[in-house]
Amino acid sequence: MVSYSASQVPTSTSKAHGWPGLIAAYRSYLPVSDQTPIVTLHEGNTPLIPVPAIAQEIGRQVQVFVKYDGLNPTGSFKDRGMTLAISKAKEAGVEAVICASTGNTSAAAAAYARRGGLRAFVLIPDGYVALGKLAQALLYGAEVLAIRGNFDQALEIVREMAATYPVTLVNSVNPYRLEGQKTAAFEVVDVLGDAPDWLCIPVGNAGNITAYWMGFCEYHQQGRCDLLPRMMGFQAAGASPLVTGTAFSHPETLATAIRIGNPANWQRAIAVQEASQGAYTAVTDAEILEAYRLLAAREGIFCEPASAASVAGMLKLKEQIPTGATVVCVLTGNGLKDPDCAIQHCMNQFKQGVEPTLAEVASVMGF
Amino acid sequence: MVSYSASQVPTSTSKAHGWPGLIAAYRSYLPVSDQTPIVTLHEGNTPLIPVPAIAQEIGRQVQVFVKYDGLNPTGSFKDRGMTLAISKAKEAGVEAVICASTGNTSAAAAAYARRGGLRAFVLIPDGYVALGKLAQALLYGAEVLAIRGNFDQALEIVREMAATYPVTLVNSVNPYRLEGQKTAAFEVVDVLGDAPDWLCIPVGNAGNITAYWMGFCEYHQQGRCDLLPRMMGFQAAGASPLVTGTAFSHPETLATAIRIGNPANWQRAIAVQEASQGAYTAVTDAEILEAYRLLAAREGIFCEPASAASVAGMLKLKEQIPTGATVVCVLTGNGLKDPDCAIQHCMNQFKQGVEPTLAEVASVMGF
Repeated sequence: MVSYSASQVPTSTSKAHGWPGLIAAYRSYLPVSDQTPIVTLHEGNTPLIPVPAIAQEIGRQVQVFVKYDGLNPTGSFKDRGMTLAISKAKEAGVEAVICASTGNTSAAAAAYARRGGLRAFVLIPDGYVALGKLAQALLYGAEVLAIRGNFDQALEIVREMAATYPVTLVNSVNPYRLEGQKTAAFEVVDVLGDAPDWLCIPVGNAGNITAYWMGFCEYHQQGRCDLLPRMMGFQAAGASPLVTGTAFSHPETLATAIRIGNPANWQRAIAVQEASQGAYTAVTDAEILEAYRLLAAREGIFCEPASAASVAGMLKLKEQIPTGATVVCVLTGNGLKDPDCAIQHCMNQFKQGVEPTLAEVASVMGF
Repeated sequence: MVSYSASQVPTSTSKAHGWPGLIAAYRSYLPVSDQTPIVTLHEGNTPLIPVPAIAQEIGRQVQVFVKYDGLNPTGSFKDRGMTLAISKAKEAGVEAVICASTGNTSAAAAAYARRGGLRAFVLIPDGYVALGKLAQALLYGAEVLAIRGNFDQALEIVREMAATYPVTLVNSVNPYRLEGQKTAAFEVVDVLGDAPDWLCIPVGNAGNITAYWMGFCEYHQQGRCDLLPRMMGFQAAGASPLVTGTAFSHPETLATAIRIGNPANWQRAIAVQEASQGAYTAVTDAEILEAYRLLAAREGIFCEPASAASVAGMLKLKEQIPTGATVVCVLTGNGLKDPDCAIQHCMNQFKQGVEPTLAEVASVMGF
């Protein structure tokens, strides 16, 4: 465990000495100073949960844990990057941030921006998205603009806005995002006592795999871990440019959080693979759903479909896992973000019209 | 902070030494032995987050924190009781648990039961509930029976089932539920260094306010805190039997998690009020929604509507809060549990049909 004392906690929380959020906990590893106003929701410190039923499918004394980052304050790993990106934006004196996103990024941006007293703008294509996907960001107070154009145009405009006006871009190109995200690797090492042998992770834009690798390397350089993991990235088969080597112009997968045809961090992703002796592997939507159900119904863990790609991939490659190895699978988002997927893909265990008597209920239950 | 060492961690997690879940962390305060198989998702250890913008509405150096229990593994405080209830059920050798619930209880019961290798049965009235409310429990593998009857009949049948067959009832009458829930009070004291002056909490069945009080009293007896808080319970005006003194036969509020007309723990609730010099106060749905939006849009915290009753109530009674006091408001559930409420009650900040040019977007944004 990382140690922290009351003196590290921002003055606004002066009476508290629990987990202070990841910037205060890992301050010396992050680009902050005493002048940086820390905007935190006490993100990070998410549980590393053993999944023994899944480990049993591999056997050979392999230990498997999931890093359940869906328990961050807005429900995804994006909070790790956003606490730093918003704190630095506030330090720079801007009064607004902007992003083009319909998912976890817009929710995290809105929550941290509003907590920091900044305005949060979200650009999306008209008619692109169901309102439900934006409910969280809207409640946090995001101001959403739907443009008559496509997603690439939205991205282009937010870049121009940030270049022209005092508005900070908090899309994945913001360099502080990866700096914040690397703390997840620190937490894994702090709990396990060393890096795992394998780190299995869903890959879309390849930002998170890059950030984890940064974290492991920094800890290794500081002598905080002896091992460096093999970085095993998993993409949905319908959106797997790092596997096939070519961009996908029409990426398709139900794992929307990794539906990316042309990863922003493509070169970094290749560098991570080479440096860690890792690999990129495709998993089908059917394999993702199987892992999604397995995590819920055997381990009691409800994640976003994209998150389950890490477990699906690990099981696909299980013969390659060394005997006795420790494996960590990253679960990037909370399953509550996508309840429709749960409804569509749960097994049918709903029996209606049961007679309201003890005998009938007992009979239906098999007693 | 509570201290725990690797030796306290169950053997299945032998390599890990992070937060081990609340049973391992608070073992000496809980009715478990070496024979108890601990079923845990590493619940508890949820953040105590300062809410300075809300505190500013009170002024007078009052410090306000929220205990954000929506960051438990299944998204609500119910996990605290369920880890213990399921561990004890497993110790007793049963192979199934049962409850009558359409909300957070059924989700927690299903997750922990399945993780422990038990079957989880959920009884509900036919046509009573939208499938979406059950999505989480169904994905966890709950077996749901909808009976041709009302909720009281469902409750009666689950009690008879538990009395007649080797099935453990995990509704709120299960005594281990409150034992587990009291650990939230321990965590508050461990972070603040003492109990708060006021503890503000939503009240439905009055189980959680009873459990918090148990926790503060036990810690106080052990010398872990000097103060005992005033327990300030808040009910929705349309379901406020503890305020009016009479049961509500048709309780009505959008805060469904506290829509209870006849609390199971009525006598205990009165005892807590008297012992702590507390009070029960009603808040309207409009006040709940205002607090719900305030938490999200000013503090970046998204909770269930019922959870916001604690903040709404505190603000309603703000003149009574002593100068310089420390107040903790309990947020019992994650806002992602009820996305429809967010869509219906967010402010209208969604602008469609914007021309995809820098000039037009900048103009709409006010630059």
